[in-house]
Amino acid sequence: MAGVLYMIPCPIWEQGSVADVTPVANMQVINSLDYFIVENVRSARRFLSKAGVERAIDELEFVELNEHTVHQADVERMLKPIIAGRSAGVISEAGVPGVADPGAAIVSLAHKHGIRVVPLVGPSSILLAMMASGQNGQSFAFVGYLPVKEPDRTRSIRNLERRAMQEHQAQLFIEAPYRNRKLFETLLHTLSPKTKLTVATDITSPEESILTLAVEEWQRREVPSFDKRPTIFILGI
Amino acid sequence: MAGVLYMIPCPIWEQGSVADVTPVANMQVINSLDYFIVENVRSARRFLSKAGVERAIDELEFVELNEHTVHQADVERMLKPIIAGRSAGVISEAGVPGVADPGAAIVSLAHKHGIRVVPLVGPSSILLAMMASGQNGQSFAFVGYLPVKEPDRTRSIRNLERRAMQEHQAQLFIEAPYRNRKLFETLLHTLSPKTKLTVATDITSPEESILTLAVEEWQRREVPSFDKRPTIFILGI
Repeated sequence: MAGVLYMIPCPIWEQGSVADVTPVANMQVINSLDYFIVENVRSARRFLSKAGVERAIDELEFVELNEHTVHQADVERMLKPIIAGRSAGVISEAGVPGVADPGAAIVSLAHKHGIRVVPLVGPSSILLAMMASGQNGQSFAFVGYLPVKEPDRTRSIRNLERRAMQEHQAQLFIEAPYRNRKLFETLLHTLSPKTKLTVATDITSPEESILTLAVEEWQRREVPSFDKRPTIFILGI
Repeated sequence: MAGVLYMIPCPIWEQGSVADVTPVANMQVINSLDYFIVENVRSARRFLSKAGVERAIDELEFVELNEHTVHQADVERMLKPIIAGRSAGVISEAGVPGVADPGAAIVSLAHKHGIRVVPLVGPSSILLAMMASGQNGQSFAFVGYLPVKEPDRTRSIRNLERRAMQEHQAQLFIEAPYRNRKLFETLLHTLSPKTKLTVATDITSPEESILTLAVEEWQRREVPSFDKRPTIFILGI
């Protein structure tokens, strides 16, 4: 009988305690596994060690699945032990795996092979930002990164704003943290004054800041201090 | 100084243990509060009691915020104690508040008054379904309920499929559980054979079932046993 593929969340804020942001029940699953498919081996080892995994880390097997995993054959190979009966855990660099990371590749293949996939509860900056934003939780979209170059970037912001207005669908996106300020400035220049913009920075950390204001209100304030800090942007009406 | 508005998740599967699906750290927040803005008072009391809240439930104050809360003045009134310095918790009937429920109304108002909103980690069937679906976690949208009447329903399914194809954006939606079968049949008649459809039922319960197949594969199988069971549908390519 085939193993099970567990989707195992880790903290978003790396310095934080694992127990603060994940249910203790996740540890039972983690302690039952010796095979992990991870975005980054070093950060996965650090997470498991900090979580207090019972086995010696050196006895655990890790394979990396990330943007450098280009061949489908490599993903197939990762699945083989699971087909043969060994269960595995998928761990992202931060937060929940399978969302805004390359983890979906192994999950998709698991479904093709009839392998059961079980998601565990943990922190997602996308979901936490939505919960605390006051934007429309009945309809929302996460679109990842916007195009970096102009005129594509401004055009994509206009398209997101149009969709937010026409469909009342909140639009979530992210940026490489060192470019947050640049993106924010473009947003203030491009969006309508009444459009609501959420800036959610360092979620789950002691420095967490989540604020929703109209664009015209943001324009009257100082730029948020989000340089090099992971931030989710949400626009809506 | 104003209080803080905490977004407090509760289990999706009501019979389950609170500790299985929420971090123990949430209890510190819960025990610090005596004022709760909830979707349903009875279910919120049951949750707090089961979670092992320290104070007597009768000493806690509850106000309901749900689809029957029609007046903005009522929501304003709920916020008053927080403006005056008392912190509050928002609790949904199931899962995380502020997403796919009426909780966003109080959050939006809190931002207007400069009140800090803090989201706690917990189970979201939308997020858990995405994690375990293998659908595109880099771009996805939750659109709530589809129109019930034809031809609007079929048209909305076609629009979602078009968007899934053109933008490679996974499309998530829900249905009243007693109508799952009817929606599923319409999906199989309407979607292209190669479109991938995820059916995620009873997430976090022992009967959890999450499966992604091409529409043509679903057509060759028996209908899933999801009658009256909460289900998330996802379509993608």
